[in-house]
Order: sequence, then C-alpha cells, then structure tokens
Amino acid sequence: MNKLLSIASLAALAVSAPALAQETEKTEYPSPNAIVDTAPARDWVKISPSDLLVMDLAPDAEGNARRVVIQLMPKPFSQGWIRNIRKLAAAHWWDGTSINRVQDNYVVQWGDAGYDNPESGETEQKALPEGLEIMTDRQYEMIQQPVALIKLPQNMVKAREDQRGDGYATWVRHKQGWPIGSGRFSQWPIHCYGAVGVGRNLSPDTGSGAELYTVIGHAPRHLDRNIAVVGRVIEGIEHLSSLPRGKGQLGFYEDASKRVPITSIRLGEALAEDPSPAFEYLDTESEAFAQYADARANRRDPFFIKPAGGADICNIPVPVRRVSGE
Amino acid sequence: MNKLLSIASLAALAVSAPALAQETEKTEYPSPNAIVDTAPARDWVKISPSDLLVMDLAPDAEGNARRVVIQLMPKPFSQGWIRNIRKLAAAHWWDGTSINRVQDNYVVQWGDAGYDNPESGETEQKALPEGLEIMTDRQYEMIQQPVALIKLPQNMVKAREDQRGDGYATWVRHKQGWPIGSGRFSQWPIHCYGAVGVGRNLSPDTGSGAELYTVIGHAPRHLDRNIAVVGRVIEGIEHLSSLPRGKGQLGFYEDASKRVPITSIRLGEALAEDPSPAFEYLDTESEAFAQYADARANRRDPFFIKPAGGADICNIPVPVRRVSGE
Repeated sequence: MNKLLSIASLAALAVSAPALAQETEKTEYPSPNAIVDTAPARDWVKISPSDLLVMDLAPDAEGNARRVVIQLMPKPFSQGWIRNIRKLAAAHWWDGTSINRVQDNYVVQWGDAGYDNPESGETEQKALPEGLEIMTDRQYEMIQQPVALIKLPQNMVKAREDQRGDGYATWVRHKQGWPIGSGRFSQWPIHCYGAVGVGRNLSPDTGSGAELYTVIGHAPRHLDRNIAVVGRVIEGIEHLSSLPRGKGQLGFYEDASKRVPITSIRLGEALAEDPSPAFEYLDTESEAFAQYADARANRRDPFFIKPAGGADICNIPVPVRRVSGE
Repeated sequence: MNKLLSIASLAALAVSAPALAQETEKTEYPSPNAIVDTAPARDWVKISPSDLLVMDLAPDAEGNARRVVIQLMPKPFSQGWIRNIRKLAAAHWWDGTSINRVQDNYVVQWGDAGYDNPESGETEQKALPEGLEIMTDRQYEMIQQPVALIKLPQNMVKAREDQRGDGYATWVRHKQGWPIGSGRFSQWPIHCYGAVGVGRNLSPDTGSGAELYTVIGHAPRHLDRNIAVVGRVIEGIEHLSSLPRGKGQLGFYEDASKRVPITSIRLGEALAEDPSPAFEYLDTESEAFAQYADARANRRDPFFIKPAGGADICNIPVPVRRVSGE
C-alpha cells in the first residue's frame, strides 16, 4: 500500500467530477461504509483476545443477553492501569458489581457501588486485589518518540490547509488504530464516543482501574490528559448508552434497584467459549483508511449537498468488525 | 456589562494563581456550573412560550410521564421550516405519530412511521396540512450581514491564538443564545448534542418539518448546511436518548411495537396548563457567559490537572434553566 498517498491528494483527485445527488445507484464516490466494506483483507488487523475485555450484564427486562466488548489500548498508552485491569479481571473482581452511574451526554460508570458516591447508601468499599500498581498523572500522556518530532504524522485529520489540530491538541491523528492527540513533546489518547477511562478521585489519586466509565455523548475532550483512557467499546455500547439516566448528582442512581448487575468481566482469552469473540480493526496506516477518513471529511454520497471539507477526529471512528472466531 | 472583556483577556487575568487540587471548599476558580448559578438576573433571557415546542410521549413502562421541551431557533435561521412546524403543531398533526428511529451515537427521529422507511411495513404516509412552505437548500445557511465581515465576532470559542474556527467552519461562536458557524459570506446553526433538525429525503427535497430528529451522540457536524436545524431540546432529552436502539437499517424500529407513541406536540403558548412551562437562557453576549465559556475551555476546578486551553463549541452548551411560569 502506498503510505505516501495523503488525504489531501486523494481529495484533489476526487474533486473534479462531483456526483449528482440523484445518482443513488451508481456514484463515483463511494460512501465511507462502502469504502470500509470493500477494503482488502490485508488492511484489517486482528485484535488479540488478550486485548479484549468482555463484560456481561444481567439480562434485560425481556430476558435478552447484554454483552459489551471493550478493546484495551496498545502500548505505550495507559499500560499500568491496563495491567491492573487484567489483574482485576483474572480475580473476577467485577463479578457482582454494577453499573452505578448514567449521566446523559457524558458517561456510564461501573464498578463498586460504594466507591466515591455519597448517595449510594453503601458504607463500605469492596477490597481490591493485592499488588495493583499506583500510577502518576504524568502517565496520562507519553513522551513523544524523537521521530515524531521530525516526521509529519500520517493520517492526520486535515480540516483546512492551515489546521492540523483542534481546540485540544496541536496535532490529532489516527495511529495504531486509535485517535491520538499530541503536542510537541507528548502524545495522548483521545476521549471519543465509546472511549473507556479510569474513574478517579481528586488528584493526586489516579484511579486503579477498578472504576471504569465509557463516553456516551459528545466527546468530553477536556478529560484528555486528566484521566487515563484504557480502551474503547467495540460492540454492545447500546446496552450502556440506552440505560435510564440516574437521577442523583452526576447521574448516579439514587435507587439501588436501578443499578444493573454485572455478571462477569473477563479477558477475551479467558472466556470458556467456542468460538471466542474475534474482531479486526481497519489499519489506520492503510490506503483504505485514508480513503475512508477523506470520505468522512468530504461527504460526496448522494444525501449531501455541501461536504464539510474537514472532520472532527471523533467523527472518524476507526472501523471495527466481528470475524469468525478460532 | 462589558462586552469588550474578551475570553482571551479573562484567561490572562486568571492564569496567575492556579488553584490547588486540594482546595475543594474554597477555590478562586469557580466551576462552570458555579458561574452559571451566580450569574445575575439581568444576564438571563426569557424564552417566549411561542418558541417552545412541547412533546408528550406515552408514559414509560413504570407509568412515568415523558415530556420533551424544544426551543425553536430565532430569526434569521430556518424560519420557513419553523413556520411549517407551527402549522403542524396547530393542526395537532403529530398526535398519534411515533418515535420511529433511534440510532446509537447519532439521532432519534419522530413523525410519520410510513415516511421514507421501507422497513416500516406502512404502506401509506399521513397527509400533511395544506399550505406548508417548500424551502430550498440555500436556506440551510444565511447570507452574512455586512457588519459581520468587518466586526470580530464576540464570544468566539478561542482554541488557540491562531484558531477561531474548527474543521467545519471558519468561525464558530455563540450568538443570540445559539452555536453558530460562519464563513466569509454566510452563517449557519451548528448540530450539537440535542440539536433538532428536519428529516428529509435526497436533495432537492429539503423536508417539510413534519419529520424531526434530535442528536443523541457526538455532534454530527457534517450535517451542518445539509439539513435545517430548527431548535434544540432544552428539557427531557433523556426520554429520547435512553430509548432502546432500533435494530433495522439506520436504527429504525423493525418491530412496530417498539415505536413510542407521541401523545401530543404543542407550542408552549397553546398548552392549557397553569403555570405553563417557562425557561430562560444565559445571554451569550453577557460577561457571565464569557466567564462560563472560558471556564469550560480552561477547567481549573479541583478535579482537573491540565486545562485544555480550548473547547469544541459543542462542549460549551448554552445554559438553560426552568423558571416559574406565569
């Protein structure tokens, strides 16, 4: 694949023959979904079962199973918290805990109902396993590799010629399958819809990883570099985002009966299932991804009249697909 | 109030004495909510009952009432569609229609279940009232007033010194209580969380206003200038955002029994209630709003370690509060 074919040059190639809105059946400009659907097999990257965190909730009122699958972040980001999360899953620590907080346009949070929630009525906190690491707030972002200082990032979301970042970062781009923000000296994961982060108390507390949340609203980017992002929901987020909002402060459930019980949380590799769930993401360094990102930023499919010419990085979610397990 | 006190100068004043994270009780930097709570009465603007659209859904499974209140956009934006919406409400057109589509991280859509939904099983569309206007796609944005070309916009969301816009607009700012994008010659309303827009078919159709949707995910800014934004939900969005996601294409409910019935939609002025619902928004040209916007962009309340220094305009929602009716 040709990594030098930039988003900008793709856009230049494509601009010469605008599609007519009426051409619904045949258009020269495939939709973002069509680009993803036809991406070659070599552009898909397998997600290791050891990087999956599988959360099973109690069935819903109609008896339907509710499974949420989270992909954990790759190195070098947030690895201390992720090691803790692996230990917590291995210890079955979350089994019997619950979803405790659902705040509209913000987050769903789960873990110990007694954690940092004066309204919970709980008087004790569940004991954590031995040997969890304590992280510092410096680890919310990582020192840039020297190469990044001199090499123009690939797959940058180019909004306009003069813009490579946004209100929250000097540069934003996709890297190793994730949305990443960076400044001159550091880089950090971005809080987009579905991002999973580590709940914490006031600094210097950084959280252990036992309290987790996921974003169910507009990207709360002010949390970037203030909380550890450890992963993202890749399947089943509707089981969290459609829960009733909590009526207490910060969306905590005042009524304990509203808390959804967590049956179990396991690493994908620890599931006793055949086949075990398996997923792939679209390589963010691939040509197909560059085309997809360009199409998201310049919607030329028939519905659109005026392509934006740019896109918020959180409006370019990395495509993830389920594949048959092994 | 001093309209010349810019966000940038407020930030400069505030930067000299950073709050300690431990000072939870007493801090020199009030949180965004605290700024809103202490804003003087003169900075709040009453929303006319004629600009409220009140949607009552059938009660939920526990028998709780579900009311959603929408504020309609002021002139000069989207007024043709809004005139249609007033006619539709006066004709009680929506009564007995339903919520037909809930797509995760995107929109909730309501109106005629037979509209543009091949999976609905409906064979007919509900007839519209006589005399609705037909709008053109030119009306998705408005010609700039000449003054805007020479006057630097107030209450711009300054992300960095060199940035006044974002990936979707040359400038973004709050104006008349709304988030507005603009280029050199035109301006348009922005699709933030809770924005209400007019569903339509492929261009040149622009929609009548009978099919409406609201945003329940990350701001789909690629819809700006492609669909008419006619308002925003100011109360009760949780009755929409927490609905089960539809399993059909685009989140339409395949199973008609999942559609939530709409009991009625009325203009606020037509409600036979005493007191009628009454709301105010924080004047976006006020000093209190500038302080609030600055605090959202530079979180100095104790939880935060690293203020972002900027904010996405959709992360600066205009404060709206309920007041006692008349």
